[in-house]
Amino acid sequence: MEYRYLNDDLTPDYLHTLTPSDRQALCKELREKIISTVSKNGGHLASNLGAVELTVALMSVFDYTKDKIVFDVGHQSYSYKLMTGRFSRFDTLRQEGGISGFPRRSESPYDSFDTGHSSTSVSAALGMARARDLSGGDEYVIAVIGDGAMTGGLAYEAINDLGHSGTKMIVILNDNEMSIDKNVGGMSKYLKNLRISSGYISAKRTTENFLAKNLPIIGKPIVKIILAIKNFFRFLINKQVPSMFEDLGLLYYGPIDGHDTEALIRALGAVKDLRHPVLLHVCTKKGKGYSFAENEPSSYHGVGPFDREVGVCKSNKLTYTGAFSGAMLDVAARNKKVVGISAAMAQGTGMDKFANKYPTRFFDCGIAEEHAVTMAGGLAVSGYIPVVAIYSSFLQRAYDEIIHDVCFMNNHVVFAVDRSGFVGNDGHTHNGLYDITYLNSVPNMKLLSPRDYTELRMCMDHAVNECDGPCAIRYPRGSSPYEERGPLYKDKVELLRPHILSDEGDGFVILSCGTIGYQCDKAITLLKTRGFNGKHISVTQVNPLPVDEILALTKANKIYTVEEGVVSGGMGEMFCNLVSSSHPQINVKVFAVEDPMIRAGSVDQQLKKAGLDAESITSRIIEDLKS
Amino acid sequence: MEYRYLNDDLTPDYLHTLTPSDRQALCKELREKIISTVSKNGGHLASNLGAVELTVALMSVFDYTKDKIVFDVGHQSYSYKLMTGRFSRFDTLRQEGGISGFPRRSESPYDSFDTGHSSTSVSAALGMARARDLSGGDEYVIAVIGDGAMTGGLAYEAINDLGHSGTKMIVILNDNEMSIDKNVGGMSKYLKNLRISSGYISAKRTTENFLAKNLPIIGKPIVKIILAIKNFFRFLINKQVPSMFEDLGLLYYGPIDGHDTEALIRALGAVKDLRHPVLLHVCTKKGKGYSFAENEPSSYHGVGPFDREVGVCKSNKLTYTGAFSGAMLDVAARNKKVVGISAAMAQGTGMDKFANKYPTRFFDCGIAEEHAVTMAGGLAVSGYIPVVAIYSSFLQRAYDEIIHDVCFMNNHVVFAVDRSGFVGNDGHTHNGLYDITYLNSVPNMKLLSPRDYTELRMCMDHAVNECDGPCAIRYPRGSSPYEERGPLYKDKVELLRPHILSDEGDGFVILSCGTIGYQCDKAITLLKTRGFNGKHISVTQVNPLPVDEILALTKANKIYTVEEGVVSGGMGEMFCNLVSSSHPQINVKVFAVEDPMIRAGSVDQQLKKAGLDAESITSRIIEDLKS
Repeated sequence: MEYRYLNDDLTPDYLHTLTPSDRQALCKELREKIISTVSKNGGHLASNLGAVELTVALMSVFDYTKDKIVFDVGHQSYSYKLMTGRFSRFDTLRQEGGISGFPRRSESPYDSFDTGHSSTSVSAALGMARARDLSGGDEYVIAVIGDGAMTGGLAYEAINDLGHSGTKMIVILNDNEMSIDKNVGGMSKYLKNLRISSGYISAKRTTENFLAKNLPIIGKPIVKIILAIKNFFRFLINKQVPSMFEDLGLLYYGPIDGHDTEALIRALGAVKDLRHPVLLHVCTKKGKGYSFAENEPSSYHGVGPFDREVGVCKSNKLTYTGAFSGAMLDVAARNKKVVGISAAMAQGTGMDKFANKYPTRFFDCGIAEEHAVTMAGGLAVSGYIPVVAIYSSFLQRAYDEIIHDVCFMNNHVVFAVDRSGFVGNDGHTHNGLYDITYLNSVPNMKLLSPRDYTELRMCMDHAVNECDGPCAIRYPRGSSPYEERGPLYKDKVELLRPHILSDEGDGFVILSCGTIGYQCDKAITLLKTRGFNGKHISVTQVNPLPVDEILALTKANKIYTVEEGVVSGGMGEMFCNLVSSSHPQINVKVFAVEDPMIRAGSVDQQLKKAGLDAESITSRIIEDLKS
Repeated sequence: MEYRYLNDDLTPDYLHTLTPSDRQALCKELREKIISTVSKNGGHLASNLGAVELTVALMSVFDYTKDKIVFDVGHQSYSYKLMTGRFSRFDTLRQEGGISGFPRRSESPYDSFDTGHSSTSVSAALGMARARDLSGGDEYVIAVIGDGAMTGGLAYEAINDLGHSGTKMIVILNDNEMSIDKNVGGMSKYLKNLRISSGYISAKRTTENFLAKNLPIIGKPIVKIILAIKNFFRFLINKQVPSMFEDLGLLYYGPIDGHDTEALIRALGAVKDLRHPVLLHVCTKKGKGYSFAENEPSSYHGVGPFDREVGVCKSNKLTYTGAFSGAMLDVAARNKKVVGISAAMAQGTGMDKFANKYPTRFFDCGIAEEHAVTMAGGLAVSGYIPVVAIYSSFLQRAYDEIIHDVCFMNNHVVFAVDRSGFVGNDGHTHNGLYDITYLNSVPNMKLLSPRDYTELRMCMDHAVNECDGPCAIRYPRGSSPYEERGPLYKDKVELLRPHILSDEGDGFVILSCGTIGYQCDKAITLLKTRGFNGKHISVTQVNPLPVDEILALTKANKIYTVEEGVVSGGMGEMFCNLVSSSHPQINVKVFAVEDPMIRAGSVDQQLKKAGLDAESITSRIIEDLKS
């Protein structure tokens, strides 16, 4: 396709002078570029397609070189990137050294805030708006947040503060009735009621309404009376006063058809100079303009490369997530006390199979990791065994709840920590590099790090049926490299013991946990070819670490620990401390992730950058042994 | 006072058959017992006095041996404790081995969930309610949550899930217009409007309203119509539909006078069998019944021992909090870019002086640590220097936001981490034992641990004026023991270097950070009297740890690290790792908190239990040196 509108030099002035038909054509080009790029590189498709018109409207009204637009999560920022100088580089999307799939300040001066995790936009934007007010600036500040992200408590905290502050700022609620899966919660029902009862406000009526309100609102009794009368009539007409956001102190407008660019532009133009926080409710369709994605928005939320003519092919290849999914069904069938909890990611975590089979035993809490964990605490003290499946980087949100509502009480909650270690193309905000640290530090927590699917299943069985306190099982994204050689062992008795996985001598030991052991096995082989003969010991149980059993397997005094996580508080540091005073003759060197800012790329590229692929481990060990 | 009602054997049957005048007398006894005990032991006074009638009403309607009542935070659980078998032991409140100031499952089978941190009750109760429904039980589940705790995102996440679930459960909103300080936020304004516009519902009218609703609600169109009509009339009468909680799917009732026990009992009786989530809005007065506390509820939130006839005497003794408070004023006067952020604790953190002097530069976010941190990120990218003052154990809530919204972007945010280390009588939920771990693990974070007030002031100056990325300053509760001997040094150039604080020889080294160094200095002296001559090196900069400079100060090969925090991810583990491979001759032994479940007591008692007081350090070192 020839692009007539998109290029790297779209100035605000140019964008402001486009005609409606120009904008329509621009939207078409954006959609085409997004579909063609994502079908090659993978990425977040459905959410980006849903936000094309909204983004064009924002760029038509605001000055991206000056105003601040914060995209919540960033799953909808591709159009913005394409219009702010990154069109020609967009083919590098999510590749090593390329354009990030999320807003990144290091990538463009026009990305106002780095995002990736949910529900941060209103807080960040409120900080910017307050900074503007302190410095006497006049830029507009806009947060674009989805209805899914609105289920996160952080967003509510921010709206509560924003409403009270009276700060001039616009929150655009991009309501597509979805988080990644179908959205849940009282808020979701409420928004649905608003959509049904109000219908879309026509652009003309919208403008009139807005003009009636275009006054400094707070503290003026007459305006309060006008508001009361207006609310009264809205109530009569719509049977539902859209009062929740107004209760919290924002002016609510909408809903607006999020694919009607011209209506959006008029609405934005009308609210932008209100000296008051405004919430503009915009209804969009995830996947808009690509029929496969429209029909299955969950499946087209985040995708790998695919053929755009036939859509995404579901791979039958087993993954760790799939292995967990099966294991969850197994433990649930055998133990009626098992319940499942997800934070808006039933499909992503593989909890969906359990949810379908045992709907009454499954709870989707929305994008609300904190509530998911504390609610699990409530179920656990009542005799149930909750399995909470949350990605490693998102479970960070619940660090305090893990300590306070689970571990202090020694509650029997099982954490299925998916996406631990490097995740590849989503980049550093999504890497699961902190879980060993934050899970090791809390009391009573057992931490398991299975290597392959068989071990993952055994860990689930152990955590559910043999533990009586908190237990976390961490496993990576994708497929197990170990499957090539079949299960490492089949006996659950062996599960928690350290194992020699490669043995070429006793010159040194590599100690690893989890799937990174695959690189260590390869390193042992490579090292042997270079004349260095050692062995690889792997542990599944990271905490408590079976130090005596590890040391019983070797006489070597040189031990290299390898883990896919940050150094601080990791397995290596823990091992180092445990042997330091008791075995002064043993010299430990920790190989872990020194730089957690490693950006998007393939997992192999990320491992290499971290010095944790087989070749890097090999050369680092040789260098150390020679020194 | 002679107690005629209170004893250790108050059965539900007995409590259910009391007359109104009995209940009035019981309330009086509870208040007397609370005031007399707290004036001796210290504790949470104002919030407990405000919840006396509410608790008596709950005990009169529900069966505490079977039903589940979750007290949010637990600042209001004393009356409950006094009526559930803990009257005779109540004199041990908050003492070592005594009754905890918070609900503790280990203390009583009638404490349904451990609390201490804010906003957990609705989540925990929802877990219990779901467990009841799964197991076919018929117990009632009640969450009692303050309007302050309702500003926490976790509470919103739970209400969003509860409203959607339709689960039978009662949320009692104990609205006293306060968190610890005056409550803030849109929600707070909204609740105020409800109070003003509705007036208190009289007990009779309340009951009638409730009965009209006592039906399975969801999905029945006729009931929806009834609701619509009722809302319409409420709207006409009250000018404000109390719709926010109803928007989220709860039935809202209230407001009820929270000091009218009989009205409360009728209201609870009317809502308890609704097969739907209910929010009962109860208005109470913090400090009720003790005039000093009624007049100054913030000052009487948490108190030390005091003379009940004259009230709490404000001590003039300087504390770390006070030193921070002054330092904040200093840096703010010299650097106009400094802004202050608190999460509902302006007074507790000493941020109040800054807030009073620079009101436009101060932001109280409510009990919303996550939002406070992300909002700080927004201010930082806009060129301001936010100082975020939050207690160590509460900052745990913002672990993900520290990583994602501050550290990944290397935003210049200063964290004033008060109450790090042991806090004494509040017990394990409030101890700040994780901060070194969670702050060390995040990228770009500089972590400082000053010993005395002078260093704290220098750290603030350094963090604000010399750092350009995130910097955290951790300091303990209470007064500095070091003040006895005056500032350790006055030169900021020296601040970040390790220092020899005691030097009796080179036989061994104690390496410490922060105030715990005081115990180490004493240990060096004690050890000398026993014939063991070593030195004490202290660091202010924990991360990055100046290892080479530390090692340059000694030739000893035996180093003991001492810190007031958990082992995992602490300074000791970090030091151990850093010297392990480069200095194999050095033997490191880590002294840190092995058991973070150490309960309430004085800080000295807690240090002793952890083996971190001077005597314990001394004997542990002697034992090790002799072995």
